[in-house]
Amino acid sequence: MMNCALDDLRLVRPRDGWPSAKAVAAASGADAVLERARLYPNVTAAIADLVHVYAATARDRGFVRREVTPRQAAAEMRAHLAAGEACGVLFGPERTGLLNDDVALADTVLTIPLNPGFSSLNLAQAVLIVGYEWFAAAAAVLPEMLRRGGSRPATKDELLNFFAHLEEELVRNGFLRHRESRPSMVRNLRSLFQRAQCTEQELRTLHGVVTAFAGPRERGKAVGPD
Amino acid sequence: MMNCALDDLRLVRPRDGWPSAKAVAAASGADAVLERARLYPNVTAAIADLVHVYAATARDRGFVRREVTPRQAAAEMRAHLAAGEACGVLFGPERTGLLNDDVALADTVLTIPLNPGFSSLNLAQAVLIVGYEWFAAAAAVLPEMLRRGGSRPATKDELLNFFAHLEEELVRNGFLRHRESRPSMVRNLRSLFQRAQCTEQELRTLHGVVTAFAGPRERGKAVGPD
Repeated sequence: MMNCALDDLRLVRPRDGWPSAKAVAAASGADAVLERARLYPNVTAAIADLVHVYAATARDRGFVRREVTPRQAAAEMRAHLAAGEACGVLFGPERTGLLNDDVALADTVLTIPLNPGFSSLNLAQAVLIVGYEWFAAAAAVLPEMLRRGGSRPATKDELLNFFAHLEEELVRNGFLRHRESRPSMVRNLRSLFQRAQCTEQELRTLHGVVTAFAGPRERGKAVGPD
Repeated sequence: MMNCALDDLRLVRPRDGWPSAKAVAAASGADAVLERARLYPNVTAAIADLVHVYAATARDRGFVRREVTPRQAAAEMRAHLAAGEACGVLFGPERTGLLNDDVALADTVLTIPLNPGFSSLNLAQAVLIVGYEWFAAAAAVLPEMLRRGGSRPATKDELLNFFAHLEEELVRNGFLRHRESRPSMVRNLRSLFQRAQCTEQELRTLHGVVTAFAGPRERGKAVGPD
């Protein structure tokens, strides 16, 4: 990370605890990154204040997802940051990689183009390539951005809050009643709204839509058992 | 190397002898590269059949030398190879790096752009970045794509059909009751779903969501006047 001028390391439940003597030894002098590292109990807490999240994964997750290379991600993140919008890249644990539920929290999947006949990067190698492209992009031109007409982009916290509202009502009205299909249904819906890169104003509209639909029940009328 | 579709490894007097069980263990299955590796008594023998040689080094050697980034080197080498001119990249031992005499055998110095305030790559990391740029140069510009997990993108007709369903229900439940604000409200919602580039499968899910919300009314229960 420090090779690439990155210094905001966020850790979710590190396997070997924290601080870690092993991490210090492996850091080869980049102690500043370790000292600034912050711990989080889960992924949602770790990304709550971010606007754009990229999930680094090589596997196809079977749900609809915007996918970019590290180079494109780096150019986009430079542009986002220039516009004051915080970004992050999500990496999974060494052995298992990211869970589908983690990937579903990201706007975009980041996949490193490698030999289709043999690709086997470890976590450190993947972070290095993403960081390297980030550093190399410093001088690059800014890519196309989303015009937002004055409204600011939603934070992940605001987005997760909308998901909670929507999903609560979908459980209540019976749409998510099948326990087995619920997780993939929820992921598909989240993926869809992630892709839209909603503004804060749009999320308020969507909350209004859900509330309007749920309205009669919320005003005390029974909708009957589903 | 194999991650980056490189398979011509040339070793000059490897410190731990050859073949090496340690190298096999570290190769994580990329044995083909090790099996094809060739041994040389010195650098001049190792590069004898090449036309263009790049020396990977971060240190300024105090003599005049053409210097390029890995990205530029990759593009050049692709062009050289297309013209039938063999190329190679020279890396030094882990601890000492290349000797000045080795660098002097190269046409060009290859330097990886890194944080001027902290740069410390080991040999494996340097090889990975050079290899990655080599591979990425073949893919040229990989444009952004949407992984759709087998589902086809929705037609505009299908999308408009969903808009009609959604908006009809939003009129009915009172969300779009204000005639003046209705057009902009509708535009904002449409814009949001357009941006998500929904698949046909997702539109069916969204229809299901709207129907689930509207359900009690559609089954004949009054929701009361709004």
